[in-house]
Amino acid sequence: MSAQMSIDIAAYMRQVCQEARAASRAIAAAGTGVKSAALQAIARELGRDREKLKAANRIDMAAAESKGIDQPLIDRLLLDDNAIDRMIEGVLKVDALKDPIGQISDLAYQANGLQIGRMRVPLGVIGIIYESRPNVTADAASLCLKSGNACVLRGGTEAFESNKAIARAIDVALTGVGLPPAVVQLVSTTDRAAVGELLIQDEYVDVIVPRGGSGLIERITRESRIPVIKHLDGICHVYIDDDADVPMAVAIAVNSKTEKYAVCNAVETLLVAQSIAARVLPELGARFEQAGVELRGCAKTRSFLPNATPAVESDWTTEYLAPILAVKVVAGLDEAISHINRHGSQHTDAIVTSNLANTRRFMTEVDSASVMVNTSTQFADGFEYGLGAEVGISTNKLHARGPVGLEGLTTQKYVVYGNGEIRHR
Amino acid sequence: MSAQMSIDIAAYMRQVCQEARAASRAIAAAGTGVKSAALQAIARELGRDREKLKAANRIDMAAAESKGIDQPLIDRLLLDDNAIDRMIEGVLKVDALKDPIGQISDLAYQANGLQIGRMRVPLGVIGIIYESRPNVTADAASLCLKSGNACVLRGGTEAFESNKAIARAIDVALTGVGLPPAVVQLVSTTDRAAVGELLIQDEYVDVIVPRGGSGLIERITRESRIPVIKHLDGICHVYIDDDADVPMAVAIAVNSKTEKYAVCNAVETLLVAQSIAARVLPELGARFEQAGVELRGCAKTRSFLPNATPAVESDWTTEYLAPILAVKVVAGLDEAISHINRHGSQHTDAIVTSNLANTRRFMTEVDSASVMVNTSTQFADGFEYGLGAEVGISTNKLHARGPVGLEGLTTQKYVVYGNGEIRHR
Repeated sequence: MSAQMSIDIAAYMRQVCQEARAASRAIAAAGTGVKSAALQAIARELGRDREKLKAANRIDMAAAESKGIDQPLIDRLLLDDNAIDRMIEGVLKVDALKDPIGQISDLAYQANGLQIGRMRVPLGVIGIIYESRPNVTADAASLCLKSGNACVLRGGTEAFESNKAIARAIDVALTGVGLPPAVVQLVSTTDRAAVGELLIQDEYVDVIVPRGGSGLIERITRESRIPVIKHLDGICHVYIDDDADVPMAVAIAVNSKTEKYAVCNAVETLLVAQSIAARVLPELGARFEQAGVELRGCAKTRSFLPNATPAVESDWTTEYLAPILAVKVVAGLDEAISHINRHGSQHTDAIVTSNLANTRRFMTEVDSASVMVNTSTQFADGFEYGLGAEVGISTNKLHARGPVGLEGLTTQKYVVYGNGEIRHR
Repeated sequence: MSAQMSIDIAAYMRQVCQEARAASRAIAAAGTGVKSAALQAIARELGRDREKLKAANRIDMAAAESKGIDQPLIDRLLLDDNAIDRMIEGVLKVDALKDPIGQISDLAYQANGLQIGRMRVPLGVIGIIYESRPNVTADAASLCLKSGNACVLRGGTEAFESNKAIARAIDVALTGVGLPPAVVQLVSTTDRAAVGELLIQDEYVDVIVPRGGSGLIERITRESRIPVIKHLDGICHVYIDDDADVPMAVAIAVNSKTEKYAVCNAVETLLVAQSIAARVLPELGARFEQAGVELRGCAKTRSFLPNATPAVESDWTTEYLAPILAVKVVAGLDEAISHINRHGSQHTDAIVTSNLANTRRFMTEVDSASVMVNTSTQFADGFEYGLGAEVGISTNKLHARGPVGLEGLTTQKYVVYGNGEIRHR
């Protein structure tokens, strides 16, 4: 890429972000009705543009196939009638959510006579960087719009034509309801330099949300001058406590692993209390063998399951995203909690127990975004948590932790109502 | 400093932070009663060590005076009986606050049968970097302890002996109630390299809170690999609307500037609606002249106040922290809001008006941590807001915005209660 080109991309990205900042004032001040009309219009335009969307997607699909891109990525890229229906449904679901903006909480009088509370407000401008799924364009735009934010969307190169077609429909919809089209902007270049330029627009962009593999997220975290709501590893645990109900423990351990392998909320390490190991491990061994899951066990685990591969230290810190499960027999709750806090990724961890005291300790002491008792880690997502929709799952501790819905795209400001009070220090 | 020394400091800071991480598990799991006993013990030990604290402080004061350090800094450094009393009172006030840890909110059943809510939990390890006031050592330690966090305190070099004496009292108190002393650690070197080393311990430290001048904060923000809860400029505005009550407007504008000059919540720019300018500016001119405040006005302002200095562009973006006030006549609410959003620092801005519609728009559209109606910007602090105590005022948008009390030192995790539910996607 020539120096001239790079200057152009810098100037282009700066302008995109500057326009987003200006548009963010309009969408922040827009009422619930206007935002609803915009979302309804987006759904309608996507329906109207169905054939255009499919035609644009065929260009992306043909290019991907000619490049010999692997099948899972091609599957994610496909925008057929079914995918378009689900995309439209997604927009309408976001419209149906309660508007978080303007909600005032904790409004109360203070001794100084002032009435003080906190108002939920948009963050401003959100930069979203994602990979191959074109439906993210509509999803992310809807969530940002509903939460009163402008957004700058940088989609994957493979989905460029599909994303442009979706963005055009959104543009028509926004204009139709009198909102500035810069409320939702798609970056109109596939040059990789655009990402780097986006990450330094801290004057105009308030937060970056990356959606993609850990390579993408690590690069973004390293380069960004803007706070990142990020999702790193999901090294999730299920701990079967001394007092677990055995059939429940088996069902939860199996479901947490096998319901879907390539998801961040799949269990990667199973911890079993020594006193219950003899009652659960043989059955679990059989169930996992049947499901084709490779077990990697500690020495004690292998005394019950001789066919298990011997686990090595790195097994306790690996996100397999595959039919592999590390298994460790622990002395009890204390060892389970310290194993999780030491080796886990603070994503989602579950205990199976009927003991109340152990439940309270696990829920309090395990330092993860989601802590669960007597259920499958696979439930950890925004839809199951009742958020209605999610922009991702955060492994950050600050601001938004766990599934991030509309609220994670907002902040709170203090509102202070007085009647002429002045301060005497 | 030799290379060897620098390696030692790196190893030392790493060890301090590692021990803080280990201790953070103990304080996170500590009950309200234990934390209260610790705070009571800290207050008691500080009282017992009164003479030692004063003796240590005399060493710092003598060193500062012999170095010819300026008087305001020397005043901040002083730890006399009165300052010690206020420090002890501060610790007891933190003890009296409600414990935020373990509070569960929004606990509700979802369609999947799970009961899901959010539990307030500590952040983990907090690094606090501050300048000359030794009382910050006790203040910051109390707030971190009450919010269930371990802390690493790096105080100013001038206060080194005073800080060590305070930290010793805290250490005795923690040990006395059975908490690991590493819950509160003071960095035991004045080497500046220690700050740089602290900022890269992202494996062990969850958040950095700097307290000091903008130079310190900018350095920390630039160097830190750890999220920073920071306080940058306070360029605050008072806008006198068309419909303001004139005596109230005058009183608020004067108080917002003159009650204290060198504070972040002092007003720096006064905006006046054109239609009311003739009724407020002459009296304001007289009041500010009497108070010795220099006015820097736009051309329209100077048509009412010919003695005002002509304002230049940079006056709209300067935090004077001094008896200087920029004054601009604006067409009305729209221009006021855009001026504030463009030139302000998103700290604290107030409108004076009796108009409900304008109030609603100002509160919604001004994008600042605190928005006020009919009161003085000088009220913007954690004590006046009912937080009981504050670790600072955040100009961040994410996580904690505005005065940061105990809640800002915590985060929320999802808690999920089930009865054997497994997921079928």
